[in-house]
Amino acid sequence: MFEAKFQNFADDARSGDSGPRLAALREKLKQRKLDGFIVPRADAHQNEYVAPCAERLAWLTGFSGSAGLCVALVDGAALFVDGRYVLQAPQQVDAAFYETLEVAANPPPDWIAEHARAGARIGYDPWVHTPSQIERLGKALSAKDMTLVPVEPNPIDEIWPNRPAPPQGAISLYPERHAGTCAQAKLAQLRGKLQGADAALISDPHALAWAFNIRGADVPHTPIALAFALLPRSTPPTLYVDAGKLDAKTRRALEQFLIVAPPAQLEEDLRRAGSAGETVLFDQATAPIKLVETLREAGGKPRLGEDPAALPKARKNATELAGARAAHVRDGAALTRFLAWFAREAPKGELTEITAAQAIESFRRDTGLLRDISFPTISAFGAHAAIPHYRVTRGSNLKIAAGVYLIDSGAQYLDGTTDVTRTLAVGPASTQFRDHFTRVLKGHIAIARAVFPKGATGAQLDGFARRALWEAGLDFDHGVGHGVGAYLSVHEGPQRISKTGETALEPGMILSNEPGYYRVGEYGIRLENLVVVEPREIAGAEREMRGFETITLAPFDLNCVEPSLMTREETAWLDAYHARVREVLSPLVDETTRAWLDTATRAVGG
Amino acid sequence: MFEAKFQNFADDARSGDSGPRLAALREKLKQRKLDGFIVPRADAHQNEYVAPCAERLAWLTGFSGSAGLCVALVDGAALFVDGRYVLQAPQQVDAAFYETLEVAANPPPDWIAEHARAGARIGYDPWVHTPSQIERLGKALSAKDMTLVPVEPNPIDEIWPNRPAPPQGAISLYPERHAGTCAQAKLAQLRGKLQGADAALISDPHALAWAFNIRGADVPHTPIALAFALLPRSTPPTLYVDAGKLDAKTRRALEQFLIVAPPAQLEEDLRRAGSAGETVLFDQATAPIKLVETLREAGGKPRLGEDPAALPKARKNATELAGARAAHVRDGAALTRFLAWFAREAPKGELTEITAAQAIESFRRDTGLLRDISFPTISAFGAHAAIPHYRVTRGSNLKIAAGVYLIDSGAQYLDGTTDVTRTLAVGPASTQFRDHFTRVLKGHIAIARAVFPKGATGAQLDGFARRALWEAGLDFDHGVGHGVGAYLSVHEGPQRISKTGETALEPGMILSNEPGYYRVGEYGIRLENLVVVEPREIAGAEREMRGFETITLAPFDLNCVEPSLMTREETAWLDAYHARVREVLSPLVDETTRAWLDTATRAVGG
Repeated sequence: MFEAKFQNFADDARSGDSGPRLAALREKLKQRKLDGFIVPRADAHQNEYVAPCAERLAWLTGFSGSAGLCVALVDGAALFVDGRYVLQAPQQVDAAFYETLEVAANPPPDWIAEHARAGARIGYDPWVHTPSQIERLGKALSAKDMTLVPVEPNPIDEIWPNRPAPPQGAISLYPERHAGTCAQAKLAQLRGKLQGADAALISDPHALAWAFNIRGADVPHTPIALAFALLPRSTPPTLYVDAGKLDAKTRRALEQFLIVAPPAQLEEDLRRAGSAGETVLFDQATAPIKLVETLREAGGKPRLGEDPAALPKARKNATELAGARAAHVRDGAALTRFLAWFAREAPKGELTEITAAQAIESFRRDTGLLRDISFPTISAFGAHAAIPHYRVTRGSNLKIAAGVYLIDSGAQYLDGTTDVTRTLAVGPASTQFRDHFTRVLKGHIAIARAVFPKGATGAQLDGFARRALWEAGLDFDHGVGHGVGAYLSVHEGPQRISKTGETALEPGMILSNEPGYYRVGEYGIRLENLVVVEPREIAGAEREMRGFETITLAPFDLNCVEPSLMTREETAWLDAYHARVREVLSPLVDETTRAWLDTATRAVGG
Repeated sequence: MFEAKFQNFADDARSGDSGPRLAALREKLKQRKLDGFIVPRADAHQNEYVAPCAERLAWLTGFSGSAGLCVALVDGAALFVDGRYVLQAPQQVDAAFYETLEVAANPPPDWIAEHARAGARIGYDPWVHTPSQIERLGKALSAKDMTLVPVEPNPIDEIWPNRPAPPQGAISLYPERHAGTCAQAKLAQLRGKLQGADAALISDPHALAWAFNIRGADVPHTPIALAFALLPRSTPPTLYVDAGKLDAKTRRALEQFLIVAPPAQLEEDLRRAGSAGETVLFDQATAPIKLVETLREAGGKPRLGEDPAALPKARKNATELAGARAAHVRDGAALTRFLAWFAREAPKGELTEITAAQAIESFRRDTGLLRDISFPTISAFGAHAAIPHYRVTRGSNLKIAAGVYLIDSGAQYLDGTTDVTRTLAVGPASTQFRDHFTRVLKGHIAIARAVFPKGATGAQLDGFARRALWEAGLDFDHGVGHGVGAYLSVHEGPQRISKTGETALEPGMILSNEPGYYRVGEYGIRLENLVVVEPREIAGAEREMRGFETITLAPFDLNCVEPSLMTREETAWLDAYHARVREVLSPLVDETTRAWLDTATRAVGG
């Protein structure tokens, strides 16, 4: 009945080829007189989603997670993963060849120091590491008399037969009716942020997409084009990109304000800038050390700092916000159709995690405007819901029965990116579960209702979302909110609500509001809406104040709520939110869904 | 009647000598071919309170504030101060010679770039700057083709006639009945934190006092000895200190576990360590660049990091906590005597800010155990209370009449350091003032009642203290809480409650809880108790939880409270706190005070 086009449910494959692949790599290392080589899960832009040709870590080790690092020594090899992957990784890699270690408790330099010879030379590909990553690693290794050595080409590429070609996704112009500002105006804004540098290298493809008003199709779930750009102070910027990604019309449009050049010319241009003694600003979070050193070796002055596009991109303009609101109304109607369908079907006991994930995507596709899902849907029943980053596969797929079901999903529409989580009870909800659910909801409402002055950071708000859980001795181990792009990445910085959220929250920023609670082996709860930071007028205010506008529209499952645990202000917020959901979405859904929505959004306040 | 022995009320003097002093400095700069010289308000340990011989900034410019930086160029000079001192500084310095600038809006490198010639050489004294300060400044200047040049001896010292000698305060042993742990055990603990370094330089005198169980008398208000120490991995530590500070008995006791050496030997020892290729850990917050470079130039490897004593010192042991509680009971009784006296006397209209400051110190001295006040008392009536760091002088001294009075004061006892602020109404309190006072109190109570898991930071709690103010569009521009030492500094890191508080709050840490609100030109409110982080048992808890034990004991002025604005939980906390204050302090005060205390601590809850 339903179908998922943007997600597959393939099982995590266990690598059977570790032996020969590692042997081939070691042969290459010996030829280059190296004692080891570092393979991160990274491309040349430090992207979250990477192209198949950049999946070197997965090819070598079998590990398919979204973050990890392998150190292959001439004897011995280890895979370092974070807490999310400590269970998955050992199932994917061959323990005969790889030790799997949790990275926080086992810093790679310590492991290298213990396993490599004194004076060892450890190689790395300078295209897939930033200068600060190499500086940190290099410092730690030099304290042990070891050295880091840049290696090109990447030895993995030399031994990987039939390695996929780099993606050639078509680049399209992002129309000004969605972007709100023309590229020329954005470039003028960026030039004002060069801090005295002669040029800035744009290495983050999201920044590039925003600055040039383009979108691409090189990686899943995020409409970016893999490319670099150099933005000089006064002459037109150069976009270094495979010409095959540009049709004639798009190229002509871009050439109104920029120069298109082949990727290989970037190094030449940096050398030229270097020999002229120029200062170039690099984004410290994404620029590959290769390019920084190319400038430096030619005599230039690299300056590492914040991507000048990061903050302007985070602060959406009125057009982008209007797009986001429209996308959320559309997405809310699709999600509400799903919720009504789920309420009817789940009690029959025939749904599975996969059929539910297929259904939510199908309802979104029915809008006729779905470009992609914004990340693989987390469709999780029972104990699976307690795994915050659970991904359902044919092997893990559970039948949905009486209990707790959590669905975290999102969409890419041309006018906006969505990300929403609902937690649903199938059958009666226990008193304990309702207590936990209501505490998470109280945290969600505390963020939604928060007012705060100009300059306040996400760190200062983080505790609001946790307070009701803390009072019961409970907590959750992820941030409260991440930034979200405008038809771009569903995970965007620098804005965030977490204990490390040091960026001031400014009007126009879109963030998630997603406290949770996870009871390992039993159930998980996460309640997520997206919010927009907005100016807030308060009578008698002495400060410029801000608050959040909630833009996600879909009912929370009232069967899970215990209103007696809520304050009057909290139930008033919930009732007002549900009234708005009903008012906005009722005209957009079928009659059956509308009838369900009426009940689902009933008032609970006194 | 009352007297202040530890504080004077001298007016801020305006310098009349700026012309000749600046001319003499410029002559020295010319001799050394320098274009300018930087004079920070700092000593060789980055102390908050410095000895008279280190008051170079005040001697040169006339500015007596606790933070500031002067840049004297061959033409032109500027004084950079923070927001606290933008009013005071111009009154103290001679505008004919110094431009006064707010430092955040006017970065010194920008001013230098604008006022010095291209290629300028700017001098600094390498004893009074840390490496990161110089690195930051040097980077900014090198972008403008200027260079920073270390200069010794400090040219100010060469032109300052009758410059005070370095202090020779006697060092005493801090008895183990107060310290709780012997120095040997502390040193073993520090050695475990060398992170592979061969030695650590202890440059923070507070760390040194804690580690060696000593106290000194070199600067006001904080019982530290100005000295450095080197702690090698396995051999005894060396204390570099003027022998005149040690009597024979103290020296013998210290020589049980350390070597006493003259200050000048430190550089020799660092050179020796350097030529042996040793790695030395330096405290990046306090180590002078002079010593870091001495090691590096000799071939050693400086490693900049956290002072290894910072966290152990912050986490007080059971003995230190028992001392802190005893000190706070004693201090609370003295403060309560003051509050009762103030309630009787203030309405007569004869008190002044100075007589009140004298009275509080006198009541504390009556305990027979007062060693010093922990900082100059902030005794502020009306509009003065809106200045968070107000210091009363004979010239500023106001008569206390109907209105708002704020007193922020603290004591140094051998068993503990106190810091407490109360805001009092003289005469009837307006509805608006009670609204503001109650919002500050709600913030204070939110911190006092907070429970949070292991690992939670002060940044995550900061918003709790501001929420009730934010809801009215109000805020305050200082942190919620700073760390406090055990008979040491009243301002201790790394623990803090503020938006930059990234240190996890751990059991035994002492912090202030001091939200405020300042209505410029009218009044100020600050409500401050000290709290101790303690483990907290919660039924059903899944996390290791913590909460705060409030150790300051003194009534809040109930005439300023509007109970109808408080929740039931908030009034319950206030009533329970007042009941404890009454119960603990009643037996310790005279009958008149006791009668007043009974009324002052009446219950307000429903």
